[in-house]
Amino acid sequence: MSTTNISKIDRKKELEDVFPLIMDEIVSHLESIQMPREGVEWLIQSFFQNALGGKLNRGLTVVDTYEILKGNTLCELEFLRAAILGWCVELLQAFFLVEDDIMDGSKTRRGQTCWYLQPHVGMIAINDGCLLQAVIYFLLKKHFRKESYYVDLVELFSDTSFQTMLGQLLDLVTAPEDNVNLSKFSLERYSFIVIYKTAFYSFYLPVALAMYMSNVSDPIDLKQAKDILIPLGEYFQVQDDYLDCFGDPAVTGKIGTDIQDNKCSWVVNIALQKASPEQRQILDQNYGRKDAKSEKRVREVFDALNIVDEYHRYEEDTIKKIQAMIECIDESRGLKKAVFAAFVSKIYKRSK
Amino acid sequence: MSTTNISKIDRKKELEDVFPLIMDEIVSHLESIQMPREGVEWLIQSFFQNALGGKLNRGLTVVDTYEILKGNTLCELEFLRAAILGWCVELLQAFFLVEDDIMDGSKTRRGQTCWYLQPHVGMIAINDGCLLQAVIYFLLKKHFRKESYYVDLVELFSDTSFQTMLGQLLDLVTAPEDNVNLSKFSLERYSFIVIYKTAFYSFYLPVALAMYMSNVSDPIDLKQAKDILIPLGEYFQVQDDYLDCFGDPAVTGKIGTDIQDNKCSWVVNIALQKASPEQRQILDQNYGRKDAKSEKRVREVFDALNIVDEYHRYEEDTIKKIQAMIECIDESRGLKKAVFAAFVSKIYKRSK
Repeated sequence: MSTTNISKIDRKKELEDVFPLIMDEIVSHLESIQMPREGVEWLIQSFFQNALGGKLNRGLTVVDTYEILKGNTLCELEFLRAAILGWCVELLQAFFLVEDDIMDGSKTRRGQTCWYLQPHVGMIAINDGCLLQAVIYFLLKKHFRKESYYVDLVELFSDTSFQTMLGQLLDLVTAPEDNVNLSKFSLERYSFIVIYKTAFYSFYLPVALAMYMSNVSDPIDLKQAKDILIPLGEYFQVQDDYLDCFGDPAVTGKIGTDIQDNKCSWVVNIALQKASPEQRQILDQNYGRKDAKSEKRVREVFDALNIVDEYHRYEEDTIKKIQAMIECIDESRGLKKAVFAAFVSKIYKRSK
Repeated sequence: MSTTNISKIDRKKELEDVFPLIMDEIVSHLESIQMPREGVEWLIQSFFQNALGGKLNRGLTVVDTYEILKGNTLCELEFLRAAILGWCVELLQAFFLVEDDIMDGSKTRRGQTCWYLQPHVGMIAINDGCLLQAVIYFLLKKHFRKESYYVDLVELFSDTSFQTMLGQLLDLVTAPEDNVNLSKFSLERYSFIVIYKTAFYSFYLPVALAMYMSNVSDPIDLKQAKDILIPLGEYFQVQDDYLDCFGDPAVTGKIGTDIQDNKCSWVVNIALQKASPEQRQILDQNYGRKDAKSEKRVREVFDALNIVDEYHRYEEDTIKKIQAMIECIDESRGLKKAVFAAFVSKIYKRSK
């Protein structure tokens, strides 16, 4: 177990070490077009602040999946190329986070003051966020233009960006912080939001990138991967929502705010489905209010409805279905069950 | 002259008529992925509000250039395909305008309240803007995926987006509205901002798209086009800056605000180059202040420095150089001088 952890930490460190190389390439490009130094410095600051500091799960998934599909330890060059694609996913995520923080009026991100709240940044952050995304295509062109699968990578990133923005749009119009209306919520709508806003870019994208790189990219195999990773991503978000409400802050490291923030969470959607007219009224009157007393009344309804039991039932059902799909994977063209087993073992019954 | 005008108006009308077709395609796609109706309606509202209402110069340039390069009147299908690319440029522009308005704190756009200031929109506009851009790649994939030049179109859009964001970044850090520091200004920096923020997407992009479509896309020809269109775009922006300061509001239809807004305009950069230490002090103390008295003092310096004469000299010099470049165009692979002549005749000595 301890060797696994050490090698995991090493992998993260190795991936982090690639970031300065990527930044050197970007800076060289900006110098080659004679961008004035002040602009270059700003971009460097923005990228270091916004792309670093996360867990790098998505970036690491690209590298790990590529290694599993190749079937042997990656040589230095193979690692570097997978790491660049991994960083492209991290840049896409950084773009979403910078813009989301402005849209949500968030205060902190990854333990620091949000970029848009830092001195002299403000709304310039909108453009800085867009630049994080724009650089993805610069890097793909620089490193993958000659590959037969170049167009696939580019399309995968632009398709995924579009999907994520659609999920974000639906989330924003469904649950605006300042206008509580639970009649807009439903489990169906919840699914759309979660799948589009999170599952595509966090689960399908990193694996699909690794599949293209290793030439395991028959449409049938991409579909096999998607059919497992999208439900897995949805399950992951349900866990997140559950932990926000019922997790142990000492373990998760954060205090949940979904109830007060009027979030279209799995928890409230299940509650709405099961609530009696009286309970529904309590939810209508108290969900999404910025005070502890309202939150307490909501929690009382959640407790009366046994949401915790409901969650455990959901978790068992879902993992059983996903395990069954993994068992059925056709490995004949190179896709491997191990790719998905790795995911499941990281996620199943997590408490943080 | 009147027939030209009528056919021009027709062309604009024809291009506008394509927009609902594009929207139908987008909506069909959203319905096919079962996006809830509320989200679809929001996107429709945003697109109609933000993509329409402009002069469509960039979109029309794609169509007109394509027709010139083809050498004969476009059939319906040819027009439609060029129009779709034209709309892609307009969508890119709409994306920039939506985000810029938030960054600049603007109040109105194309005679209407800015999108982000409309009821219930607010910062959701950031995501709406990004969606305008994302749809470009959806449309390219839908209509051009089978073309040999598909990758070129995709790269042209992503390269141009990156360039425009770099120009925007430099503009924002050079001339923040709340912190006047004229020592950051210079004609060199002005050039970078204008070329990157405006010339690439407004001048080079529409022509290059039409060139790819008509298979006139030898790197030598793309370079010939760029070498003319970038200076032409810079000249166009210099005119814009000149007219903001010295144009007749009765003709231009707007009252200039560049002086009070601390804009890194061609006018102030020329003034800074020519100013005596005393004049420089007046500029330092009065440029970018939000009051009429300061503006008046700045204008007195501009008048003393004969900026108007300077502008006419610049205009003659520049147009001479551009005309000379157009004369020298090698048409042997299909590029045509007429493409650029059309531009020059629209722009030269314009007063609005």
